[in-house]
Amino acid sequence: MKIEEKSISALRALSIDMIEKAGSGHPGMPLGVAPAVYALYRNVLKANPSNANFFDRDRVVFSAGHCSALVYSVLHCCGYNLTMEDLQSFRQYGSKTPGHPEVYVTEGVDCGSGPLGQGFATAVGIALGEKMLAGRYNKEDCKLVDHYTYVFMGEGCLMEGISYEAASLAGRWGLNKLIAIYDCNKVSIDGNTDISFTEDVEGRFTSQGWRVDKVETINDYEGVTKALVNAKQSDKPTLIIVKSVIGYGSELQGLNKVHGSPLKGEQVVNTKKALGYDYPPFTVPSEVYEDFAALKQRGEKAEKEYNEKLEYYKKHYESEYNEFIARQNEVDLTNDFDFATTVDMSGRDVGNKVLNHFASRNIAITGGTADLASSTKAVITGGGNFVDDKVGRNLHFGVREFAMAAITNGLSLHGGFIPFCSTFFVFSDYMRNAIRMAALMETKSLFLLSHDGIEVGEDGPTHQPIEQLVSLRAMPNVDMFRPGNSKEVYAAYQSAISSNHPTVIALAKSKLAQCDANLEDCLKGAYVLSDEGEAVGTIIATGTEIALALAAQKALKQQGVQVKVVSAPCLDLFDRQDEEYKNSVLPKTQKNVLAVEAGATLGWYKYLNGTGRVIGIDKFGASAKSKDIYAHEGITIENIVNTFIQMMKDNA
Amino acid sequence: MKIEEKSISALRALSIDMIEKAGSGHPGMPLGVAPAVYALYRNVLKANPSNANFFDRDRVVFSAGHCSALVYSVLHCCGYNLTMEDLQSFRQYGSKTPGHPEVYVTEGVDCGSGPLGQGFATAVGIALGEKMLAGRYNKEDCKLVDHYTYVFMGEGCLMEGISYEAASLAGRWGLNKLIAIYDCNKVSIDGNTDISFTEDVEGRFTSQGWRVDKVETINDYEGVTKALVNAKQSDKPTLIIVKSVIGYGSELQGLNKVHGSPLKGEQVVNTKKALGYDYPPFTVPSEVYEDFAALKQRGEKAEKEYNEKLEYYKKHYESEYNEFIARQNEVDLTNDFDFATTVDMSGRDVGNKVLNHFASRNIAITGGTADLASSTKAVITGGGNFVDDKVGRNLHFGVREFAMAAITNGLSLHGGFIPFCSTFFVFSDYMRNAIRMAALMETKSLFLLSHDGIEVGEDGPTHQPIEQLVSLRAMPNVDMFRPGNSKEVYAAYQSAISSNHPTVIALAKSKLAQCDANLEDCLKGAYVLSDEGEAVGTIIATGTEIALALAAQKALKQQGVQVKVVSAPCLDLFDRQDEEYKNSVLPKTQKNVLAVEAGATLGWYKYLNGTGRVIGIDKFGASAKSKDIYAHEGITIENIVNTFIQMMKDNA
Repeated sequence: MKIEEKSISALRALSIDMIEKAGSGHPGMPLGVAPAVYALYRNVLKANPSNANFFDRDRVVFSAGHCSALVYSVLHCCGYNLTMEDLQSFRQYGSKTPGHPEVYVTEGVDCGSGPLGQGFATAVGIALGEKMLAGRYNKEDCKLVDHYTYVFMGEGCLMEGISYEAASLAGRWGLNKLIAIYDCNKVSIDGNTDISFTEDVEGRFTSQGWRVDKVETINDYEGVTKALVNAKQSDKPTLIIVKSVIGYGSELQGLNKVHGSPLKGEQVVNTKKALGYDYPPFTVPSEVYEDFAALKQRGEKAEKEYNEKLEYYKKHYESEYNEFIARQNEVDLTNDFDFATTVDMSGRDVGNKVLNHFASRNIAITGGTADLASSTKAVITGGGNFVDDKVGRNLHFGVREFAMAAITNGLSLHGGFIPFCSTFFVFSDYMRNAIRMAALMETKSLFLLSHDGIEVGEDGPTHQPIEQLVSLRAMPNVDMFRPGNSKEVYAAYQSAISSNHPTVIALAKSKLAQCDANLEDCLKGAYVLSDEGEAVGTIIATGTEIALALAAQKALKQQGVQVKVVSAPCLDLFDRQDEEYKNSVLPKTQKNVLAVEAGATLGWYKYLNGTGRVIGIDKFGASAKSKDIYAHEGITIENIVNTFIQMMKDNA
Repeated sequence: MKIEEKSISALRALSIDMIEKAGSGHPGMPLGVAPAVYALYRNVLKANPSNANFFDRDRVVFSAGHCSALVYSVLHCCGYNLTMEDLQSFRQYGSKTPGHPEVYVTEGVDCGSGPLGQGFATAVGIALGEKMLAGRYNKEDCKLVDHYTYVFMGEGCLMEGISYEAASLAGRWGLNKLIAIYDCNKVSIDGNTDISFTEDVEGRFTSQGWRVDKVETINDYEGVTKALVNAKQSDKPTLIIVKSVIGYGSELQGLNKVHGSPLKGEQVVNTKKALGYDYPPFTVPSEVYEDFAALKQRGEKAEKEYNEKLEYYKKHYESEYNEFIARQNEVDLTNDFDFATTVDMSGRDVGNKVLNHFASRNIAITGGTADLASSTKAVITGGGNFVDDKVGRNLHFGVREFAMAAITNGLSLHGGFIPFCSTFFVFSDYMRNAIRMAALMETKSLFLLSHDGIEVGEDGPTHQPIEQLVSLRAMPNVDMFRPGNSKEVYAAYQSAISSNHPTVIALAKSKLAQCDANLEDCLKGAYVLSDEGEAVGTIIATGTEIALALAAQKALKQQGVQVKVVSAPCLDLFDRQDEEYKNSVLPKTQKNVLAVEAGATLGWYKYLNGTGRVIGIDKFGASAKSKDIYAHEGITIENIVNTFIQMMKDNA
């Protein structure tokens, strides 16, 4: 047996060993796609197993994350920090080898995946990151940033809408260093893909500005290698359609049953026999390790060359060098923002000013909108448009919220970016799972979403978020901000760019409250905004409703009722404060807590100590003038006052 | 001026009058696309303004919902139940003319829209409904179901991923009676669409199995009419690319500024002048009404013919006739389900049995999965696959959750269906805004989602829902079920098929509790599952956690602590019960309420009376054996017992 074939068989054998031992997993794709993964890692990829995070490495995304066993197998064989014991702990609690690839858990995994289609879109973001950095920093005599992004995908990814959105943008942006390998086995969970997927994939990608190549059989690893090498010369992104057989070598090959059920006992033995791989479970002969060592040799050489380039660059282009390094590591939070300039401004306008404040100090800040720049105002003034300016920092994502969010995550994963994206808050629905993946992958993604409630007005219920606030507050590892004054907007952005997880900022279309606050307070997520003495209760509000709360406070005072007003721009952040602080803002013994927010009430009871009330909206909004909807829904000073007084009586 | 031109100008003029009066709205598209809308309504459409819901009418979907002013204008001119006063109340509270089209609000609106791309996908569902009914009921001598579905879309819709997903399925299903009109003005909110959208739309649709036609200028209304007539003969779905000019006739024509800002004063006057339309605001000359009356004449004739066909059909195909009528109006809830057959079954398996129980009695039940039939088990046994059997009731949506959900909504909107769709619960994220649209449109859509929590196990956090339960509970007008025993599963399906809004049912991958319950109780959303006497507190749980709650109840009893166990399969439904019932299940004065659910805790405080606790998960899950994750997250009998006892002490 040729060493190449033995190495490929090793990947296949390890994968099914892992899956058999775990008693769960997906053997179909690893058995099918191993030769292409071999071709990439053994022959083409620039990466260094000794330093998995080497900055100018090629990135690899397994968008079909169910091939995780194969991913870990190849990483192990290539000498990444993944032992045979790790492989044997596949899918066990706390292991480095979870069921779907997770970044930060496994060295060498550049992107988490599992939800289909999204890995591909994230790869587009990674490739975009490379192109943007190359556009900004590369010089005639020094290509400082110069790597490829490879992505493996199957029919499942190709069927998802996000893959078309992302492919369209990759075509538009001319991401020629993006190379997608389509594992074309024509089988998905429910059977032959023809039952639901008969489109002409070549025509589809060609129509979106891609180059398409084909390899007739995936076992032709030399053909795959050649296709990969050719793709690197393309001036367009390339899709390599590689025909494969799901579950290759097993008795179930070609059948959907082999997708997600472990091969067992005899099946495993027979598969290895069919592959001519005559070794005990979890055994890799030394010549296979030696074969895969080619990656490490190339990678160490590449890293050495990169470091030399860095030195050269530092010498000849010092300021660019400093910027390049800083953007990967530092965040400038200098606060000389002139809050006086934000008087009487809408949330989105303040957002624009604050974004630009930080963007002017942090070149890493880069992003764009889903065809809503003029509405959400998430634009870097003078930042240029990337599409016609290679150093442009503003992106036009088109009306593609989901891909936009995944691409934003990709920019963050690439490194060197604090990426943002923007649309109307209600359309966070469209990108929801990409926000979730950002949270899981701990990317520093900023989701800047304007038009934060029924204040949207005439555009009506399809454009008015109701349940989105509580929905995102409930999502782990995401900070959901809804700022109500300029300081809170500032705090939201500061928190976002300095944290190590994603942040959603919901900005009002309309004017914010004109009330000052302490930046430090705002950064605690909730704080006492106004306390006029011995209070009998508290009104807690967010966003534009803090103005109503303050007005109600005044009106109540005229009736001899003194209340505190708490503003809560970010309950996630508040929840993470120490008990002492939390108790100082919202004492657990406090009766008469009234929450006011123009959104679903469900999440508020946590803060009401059992005796409080909440004024919110548990139905869809309406197409009408904003003030009319507020009035109809009882989000008014009058209703706050009356509700508070009634609550006091009931609690007395 | 030719009458055709005058009628088209009337649509344009009315639209800008409405928008000017409202002070908000989108003039760009109405001015641009009016001739195509004219061509359709005046010359081609089969619909009856006197009976907007005539069953065999052609359906029209305005996927670009921001053209609402034009929609209302043409409905008014055609004689639908929409007065000039209605047009003058455009975008005002409670009017029949909201900012984006809403079903049930305006007669003649077949589908709500606003979130881009979704109207198109819903139209695919409507066209599918026609084809499925035609396949089942049409006879050689009587084409009982025989209508077209038209959909208007712009670049915004075309950029959204859902449009590709839906187009791919329309091509696969050969929906030749679906005709999409692409208003190709090459302008979106941020400017020329070339900044983000340069794909070859013709190539794209051709690759997805569509016929593509073109009309060089939209003002060639005769050309558009011809293209529509030709499209009706196609054996594939047709996309008609119609080149247009956004804001046609206004001084801003061709510019993105005219998309969403009202024309004002002089601008309106000048636009009408340019159109040669010399009438005061909100004025339509009688000859225009007479021109549009052609629709009504065709429609009344068509309805008469349809009624004759119905009579004929009734006479010759009585049983089919009865089925056809019943499926539009009745739901058979006969309960002879043998619960004994569900012993020791998983939630998804019980779901399958219950689905089939109801499907055998209700031919209207139709649906499918996003390539997960074998996993979610949402399959009608013996129901046939539509893709190779024209009377098949099972659909293969491929891995396209978002389009699947919108298509499901479309089936419901069409009438004659109780449609379901299915995937893993975590991927409700992908279809979230379509669930929201279902809620807004009050469609009877069933979202059957299995793998309802960390019990998913080894597939890891990308596949484990955490925040999805609370997120969907917070969505208005949706019932979110998480059943924990067979009765509750049955109740969930019964409620779903007999309600007038969408239902989400989250089903366990694993075994349900073996405890009986009263169906009537289950249908109240929450009920006392076990009450062993003088209780000092309550454990409230959902889904598979009710088994843990019951076991904890036992363990507590051994320690001399008597508690009640409440099962809450649907908190939305429970919230709608009267106060007396609610108080009987969860008294407001009850101390020591402990909620247990393997999901985000945020929504539970509402039920804890200020003194309760919640055991849940506020971080992402893990890839591990299900029992290991439960143990690590403290969703265990032991932790429930300990937490309860600690809570009692703290509350004492």
